[in-house]
Amino acid sequence: MKAFVMRQLHQVGFVEKPIPKAGPNDAIVKTTRALICTSDSHTVHGAIGPRSNLTLGHEAVGIVHEVGSGVRRFKPGDRVLVGAITPDWSDPASQAGHASQSGGALGGWKFANIKDGVFAEYFHVNDADGNMALIPDGISDESAVYCADMLSTGFMGAENADIPIGGSVAVFALGPVGLMAIVGAKLRGAGLIIGVDSVPKRQELGRFYGANAIVDYSRADPVKEILRLTADQGVDAAIEALGADETFQCAVKVTKPGGTISNVGYHGKGDFVQIPRLEWGVGMAEKTIRTGLCPGGRLRMERLLRLLQTGSVDPTRMTTHTFGFDQLEKAFEMMDKKLDGIIKPLITF
Amino acid sequence: MKAFVMRQLHQVGFVEKPIPKAGPNDAIVKTTRALICTSDSHTVHGAIGPRSNLTLGHEAVGIVHEVGSGVRRFKPGDRVLVGAITPDWSDPASQAGHASQSGGALGGWKFANIKDGVFAEYFHVNDADGNMALIPDGISDESAVYCADMLSTGFMGAENADIPIGGSVAVFALGPVGLMAIVGAKLRGAGLIIGVDSVPKRQELGRFYGANAIVDYSRADPVKEILRLTADQGVDAAIEALGADETFQCAVKVTKPGGTISNVGYHGKGDFVQIPRLEWGVGMAEKTIRTGLCPGGRLRMERLLRLLQTGSVDPTRMTTHTFGFDQLEKAFEMMDKKLDGIIKPLITF
Amino acid sequence: MKAFVMRQLHQVGFVEKPIPKAGPNDAIVKTTRALICTSDSHTVHGAIGPRSNLTLGHEAVGIVHEVGSGVRRFKPGDRVLVGAITPDWSDPASQAGHASQSGGALGGWKFANIKDGVFAEYFHVNDADGNMALIPDGISDESAVYCADMLSTGFMGAENADIPIGGSVAVFALGPVGLMAIVGAKLRGAGLIIGVDSVPKRQELGRFYGANAIVDYSRADPVKEILRLTADQGVDAAIEALGADETFQCAVKVTKPGGTISNVGYHGKGDFVQIPRLEWGVGMAEKTIRTGLCPGGRLRMERLLRLLQTGSVDPTRMTTHTFGFDQLEKAFEMMDKKLDGIIKPLITF
Amino acid sequence: MKAFVMRQLHQVGFVEKPIPKAGPNDAIVKTTRALICTSDSHTVHGAIGPRSNLTLGHEAVGIVHEVGSGVRRFKPGDRVLVGAITPDWSDPASQAGHASQSGGALGGWKFANIKDGVFAEYFHVNDADGNMALIPDGISDESAVYCADMLSTGFMGAENADIPIGGSVAVFALGPVGLMAIVGAKLRGAGLIIGVDSVPKRQELGRFYGANAIVDYSRADPVKEILRLTADQGVDAAIEALGADETFQCAVKVTKPGGTISNVGYHGKGDFVQIPRLEWGVGMAEKTIRTGLCPGGRLRMERLLRLLQTGSVDPTRMTTHTFGFDQLEKAFEMMDKKLDGIIKPLITF
Repeated sequence: MKAFVMRQLHQVGFVEKPIPKAGPNDAIVKTTRALICTSDSHTVHGAIGPRSNLTLGHEAVGIVHEVGSGVRRFKPGDRVLVGAITPDWSDPASQAGHASQSGGALGGWKFANIKDGVFAEYFHVNDADGNMALIPDGISDESAVYCADMLSTGFMGAENADIPIGGSVAVFALGPVGLMAIVGAKLRGAGLIIGVDSVPKRQELGRFYGANAIVDYSRADPVKEILRLTADQGVDAAIEALGADETFQCAVKVTKPGGTISNVGYHGKGDFVQIPRLEWGVGMAEKTIRTGLCPGGRLRMERLLRLLQTGSVDPTRMTTHTFGFDQLEKAFEMMDKKLDGIIKPLITF
Repeated sequence: MKAFVMRQLHQVGFVEKPIPKAGPNDAIVKTTRALICTSDSHTVHGAIGPRSNLTLGHEAVGIVHEVGSGVRRFKPGDRVLVGAITPDWSDPASQAGHASQSGGALGGWKFANIKDGVFAEYFHVNDADGNMALIPDGISDESAVYCADMLSTGFMGAENADIPIGGSVAVFALGPVGLMAIVGAKLRGAGLIIGVDSVPKRQELGRFYGANAIVDYSRADPVKEILRLTADQGVDAAIEALGADETFQCAVKVTKPGGTISNVGYHGKGDFVQIPRLEWGVGMAEKTIRTGLCPGGRLRMERLLRLLQTGSVDPTRMTTHTFGFDQLEKAFEMMDKKLDGIIKPLITF
Repeated sequence: MKAFVMRQLHQVGFVEKPIPKAGPNDAIVKTTRALICTSDSHTVHGAIGPRSNLTLGHEAVGIVHEVGSGVRRFKPGDRVLVGAITPDWSDPASQAGHASQSGGALGGWKFANIKDGVFAEYFHVNDADGNMALIPDGISDESAVYCADMLSTGFMGAENADIPIGGSVAVFALGPVGLMAIVGAKLRGAGLIIGVDSVPKRQELGRFYGANAIVDYSRADPVKEILRLTADQGVDAAIEALGADETFQCAVKVTKPGGTISNVGYHGKGDFVQIPRLEWGVGMAEKTIRTGLCPGGRLRMERLLRLLQTGSVDPTRMTTHTFGFDQLEKAFEMMDKKLDGIIKPLITF
Repeated sequence: MKAFVMRQLHQVGFVEKPIPKAGPNDAIVKTTRALICTSDSHTVHGAIGPRSNLTLGHEAVGIVHEVGSGVRRFKPGDRVLVGAITPDWSDPASQAGHASQSGGALGGWKFANIKDGVFAEYFHVNDADGNMALIPDGISDESAVYCADMLSTGFMGAENADIPIGGSVAVFALGPVGLMAIVGAKLRGAGLIIGVDSVPKRQELGRFYGANAIVDYSRADPVKEILRLTADQGVDAAIEALGADETFQCAVKVTKPGGTISNVGYHGKGDFVQIPRLEWGVGMAEKTIRTGLCPGGRLRMERLLRLLQTGSVDPTRMTTHTFGFDQLEKAFEMMDKKLDGIIKPLITF
């Protein structure tokens, strides 16, 4: 089969690989739709170190091609969604409620990290019963594929933020994850959602997805603006969806005492991420800093699909471009360089 | 001033009373709008025992008339919302996070219980700084007054239900509190909301406020219907918004293992409320039963008002009837007997 | 191999069975020590319906005899503890944090319920990596075997009770689970632990394990006594460790508004378990009722073993009798009839 | 009356002041015992900026001298404990469960910050009903005074750490707060408590109060040592009780994915407190960072006193020195310079 791989650092391309085989608890899925993620770029540029011919991609839906002898809930022909994170559910970290950390830090992240990803004609799913979900009739592949990572990660940002009904939230950076964090904040009952971004298209999508106010950090100090919008109280929660030290600091600064900073962004640079000491209340202002990695699992995916079914969110508005599988090289380059106002490119197989 | 009182058990009417005076931490509010609650009926018919000339009512907004010497955040002329429950915030129960139970079980409930209520030209508010909220410009009194009890109680029903994003919820009885529990469930991100009621007008409002499905218990066994709608899994949470033993039992039965039964209804009859033993998993199925009394307080009221500001909910759709203060006797009778499809009668002063 | 079984309702005895075989994720354990549980009696007398030649027992330790091809963390010869509850960790209920309910209500309970139990020379463990734990050197089998159910269930009673540091707790019934609930309450930092029992030996053990006061319900009304001991405030939490309607009612009555009733007992009789309406605050006093089934899993077992290692608890004080495997019939009868002041009989293999 | 004050930056001494007067909700307490805190040193050296003749001290017990007209639970002559933090309980931050942040960041901290402290013959207590607790007979002043800050802060460190029963904890720095964090960890059921300090007397007290292992960072890399002690898994929780950037970094490094870093220390230097990026899992390892300021309030104090009553902790072992009120200058200097192995100096009035 054809697979789109990271040949080595900074270099991608297509290679031929054998179709993977299913162990007792596994499934093999024939890919139908996939999305490119900014994380794929990070990977290619060294975020997880060098790799050789590793198949990229972790957001996909498809048709079950083969299941292992121990798989009870799926059979060939089923149309399925697979979480980007596919934990080992019996690992102690999973038993402690941190399945994405099963097998060690970030250990639930297997696709395009410790095994081949989904940018191939077929891909392998560990613990199929625990990590896949049937896509109900009436939900398109194009929509369902967003649950794998974008909805799950963005909503997690809001869940970790511990937003009270009627509470105030600031979301820093309105890429796809930030946009879904806005939806997540709305789904938790936020009364005021402030989106922070400078790109007009992202601002517009921010408003579409539920932001009550937009702060353009290129025109005004976002900390001052957010304090102004909250009568100098600060927000109950700030969601960092970029992964930059400066943004993280802003998130701490705009959060009121007793509030929560929910980090979603991948921090790729520097030895440290810095907490501004005074605005952190010299270590005593009860500002909680939480982080997370995209929740996976059948239950999570089923719940996200339900929100598509009831029309609570339409993620396809984020699909700015569509490509065939054989155009992945071009699609990847556009995403890598963020060309043509690209937000999320859909890949069809 | 004129006050509408419970003269004695089962008897209401108007009496003259002096305008109340404010102690150091208190305020006196000139009433502008109020709502009648089914609880007022319960009170008149003996729910809290006999009372003599107790002013009724606990849902009101108004204009600050007088403040005590220690009140720092409000001044005469302010347009304010007052929570139906006005806790003593320094009480140990409040310090433990259960302000509505300050001073003993249900002790935060003072209006028309341990002191005069709000169906009068003026009413008294204890701990004004802690229990009132300014109504922002642009929010009408007619809308704000719903925050005092209906939004706060209904949303609490959903908060206590611990609904996960995308989770499933059944709401039993679609009176005003049940309807606001539906909104609350939506605000917490429920993926499937099932409303249970037999009255067409209430079913219609249930759909308007966000129910994805309606079960008419007069036409089908609600337990069977809800199990059918959830592929025999049961719901993640059931909200009891009636206060009947039978409904409570249904709530336990339709909740899946590990789920939550959130009781909101006032249970007025019998020595016991009964848990069905087998469906409760013989005491081991991890079905949690939670109860609550309407949260009050400035913070709560401010957060609810914010949701009105952003248009997240329009409670005025529940106002089926409007009366002048001098028509309260008639309004009360209609509410007491649930005449003319009445849901919530608004009183103007 | 020899197995001690429930032949049919109300009848037990020994039978010959083949040594079980391990599937890919399973292990076979050679039993070294086991404990009889009151649940075994319940089972024999019909709690889970009729069974034919079902091997009894769910509390055991042993030596790994065989592991499946997919088992990574254990090998033949390892000395292991196996939780009484052996969940399917990839089930949605487990993913929701309710592993003991995996596969349906109480579904994590497999031993002597949906498959053969541990009263045999060998027993079968599903998902061995997730459900077994190595016993560290220096911890005896006689002590470790208590972790399987007694410590896990009793401590769960305290964990579900949500006890604040310095809080007050009442534990109803001081059988082995109630005694371990006392230890659990102490381990959560309770400031006042009241044990309720009428049997002198159990009262004595209650004091040994940390009760600050004992209430003998055969001599005084336990509700009145507990209110007296708490200056009429009631306790922050009540743990029901018997499974009787009357005890459950007492637990609700002695719990203060905002407090928690943690049910641990198996309720085996009647159509309903009854909540006293008035003391439940007519459904509004914020008294939470929680239930649970013994937590299993490698992580749980490892944590419990650690408490044995540091000497935080010595469960062997509950071992009132010791029998060889071939004496199980006699041991079972003594436990069934609670003869000779029996608390917990240890079985050696 | 005589008061021991911060005359100006870096300078302390005695001055005469009038006895304070009680407002409607206040009390005046005649001091009997007090403790000096390292925070007093921080204050004198500029932690909260310049002050002029501000009375120092925030840990005290005494006899009620006067109460305001609205105080219902206390009367002159009562022997009382006053929390170091005396929140405004009706403030929105308190209503949100963050009373120590009432009135703004760290706003519950009033003594020797925004009003005179307790190192005087009499001191003033705001909201007396909410902020004082009766000291039960049988508890000495010398013991009770530790509840005001040391027990409350240290235990908070453990509470915020969200320690599971049988979990592992590292406590960095074994000053009085770190020692009480050890006790707190034990009270939450920790199965392994590792104390980190280089001072032999503190190590000894660490073991006395419950540490299962001591790491001397002056002899070995504490991160490596803690990983070694936890089989390379890291701890479930790390408590930072010093307030140093380097220690904070160690705390992040030794905490396992999904674990919690509970910061208790006051961070007095630098623009930033630094999170080590890689060990923080590049912002995705689900390591939660929490902070807090000593919880105050009647309920808290009553619960802490209960633990003294049942003998769960004896804080007086930390009293290394005792001084009369008139010796405060010398006592302060010894504490300021940490002379003679001083841990906690008791002041008698």
